[in-house]
Amino acid sequence: MKQKKFRTEHQQFVVEGVKVVKELLTSPYKVDAVYTLGEISDEIASVSSVVPIIITEQQLQKMSNLDTPNNVLAVASIPKPSFAFQEFNTKLILALDTINDPGNLGTIIRTAAWFGMDTIICSPKTTDAWNPKAVQAAMGALFRTNVVYADLKTVVEEYNAADVPVYATTLDGTDIYKTTLSPNGLIFIGSESHGVSPDLLALINKRLLIPSFSSGAAESLNVSVAAGVVCSEFRRR
Amino acid sequence: MKQKKFRTEHQQFVVEGVKVVKELLTSPYKVDAVYTLGEISDEIASVSSVVPIIITEQQLQKMSNLDTPNNVLAVASIPKPSFAFQEFNTKLILALDTINDPGNLGTIIRTAAWFGMDTIICSPKTTDAWNPKAVQAAMGALFRTNVVYADLKTVVEEYNAADVPVYATTLDGTDIYKTTLSPNGLIFIGSESHGVSPDLLALINKRLLIPSFSSGAAESLNVSVAAGVVCSEFRRR
Repeated sequence: MKQKKFRTEHQQFVVEGVKVVKELLTSPYKVDAVYTLGEISDEIASVSSVVPIIITEQQLQKMSNLDTPNNVLAVASIPKPSFAFQEFNTKLILALDTINDPGNLGTIIRTAAWFGMDTIICSPKTTDAWNPKAVQAAMGALFRTNVVYADLKTVVEEYNAADVPVYATTLDGTDIYKTTLSPNGLIFIGSESHGVSPDLLALINKRLLIPSFSSGAAESLNVSVAAGVVCSEFRRR
Repeated sequence: MKQKKFRTEHQQFVVEGVKVVKELLTSPYKVDAVYTLGEISDEIASVSSVVPIIITEQQLQKMSNLDTPNNVLAVASIPKPSFAFQEFNTKLILALDTINDPGNLGTIIRTAAWFGMDTIICSPKTTDAWNPKAVQAAMGALFRTNVVYADLKTVVEEYNAADVPVYATTLDGTDIYKTTLSPNGLIFIGSESHGVSPDLLALINKRLLIPSFSSGAAESLNVSVAAGVVCSEFRRR
């Protein structure tokens, strides 16, 4: 299940670590199995009705994706995506266009959850949200977020047809600190190296820039940090 | 040089990848050697007077910290730290209290550079900024930032004595969006799991909170994302 093809075939993924597994067990996700070392089995058993299977350190080592395995590992089902535009257009939602790094994807999911955004629409080329590194970085927020993979062009066209605002962060946008921002709409975050793709940008007229305060021109922002600043700006108003 | 003890002994570190090595070569850092595959040696030679040494893919593989080595690797000297309180107290500066993850440290350096903060003071327990993963995450910003390791208690006492504001992000702070922020001072960012340590917090009276907009209480922010939101709030005013 370290590989996407197995996750796709079985529609299952792996979660590791006491804190995140507990969050999984108390989330709406369907948990198929929990494996734990003996010493913490009672602690794990106390949070849900799923009966943990006690295993040895050697067995855990074999199953784990981590160099130093934590003492609990769970297998859960990937939820069926739910995409209903009618429910979305009154909310603020992130659209991720080809985020390649699972750590960045997980961190963006965690950040969106902090800022009260419960739905994220990913382009089909965005890395898999149930990849072990994305799950780790999301720190439980994945289980409380509706993550949908969809063709973003179709989504933008739906937003445009309904006249709901669509934003993108670009290097030629207007200063985000001085722009009026809507309490609902779709906010595009582009890929680590190339930003939002040109064919999507052509459909988006609200372009925002996070201005740099550096004296040189060489600086850039990490995509998760940029997403955090953007979410903060939309929410603080 | 993958290990800190070698970096400390030789006061040297490794930089990999065309983009970052070029930024290194055009920075004030002292570059001791550049190793490159033949095909890009001209491109590398064009940016500085350091003569690149042409090596084979096999040699690069042995020297590299990366699973898939990039085509250039440089060895540079770690700069001597410079800490002059008199120069600092008119600026905004980040103080990092025990950041453990090199990726987070590098991302914070990159973020601070974007927001025009050119000095970062790290507690001695903060991970090494010249660790390969930190260098990679900083994306060249490290070479334009004055990174100092110092006892943060002494630093805070100096700020307090001079009546220059010292801020920390905590869970019991005042809403950062509604607080007047100073254009100069020291901003503490605490460790990934424990925040700013209690003995330092006791000396800091300006505590800030990034409010969550989530309906549940389980959410948290990644430390680099939190640093980004804080820097953005200080700078946009």
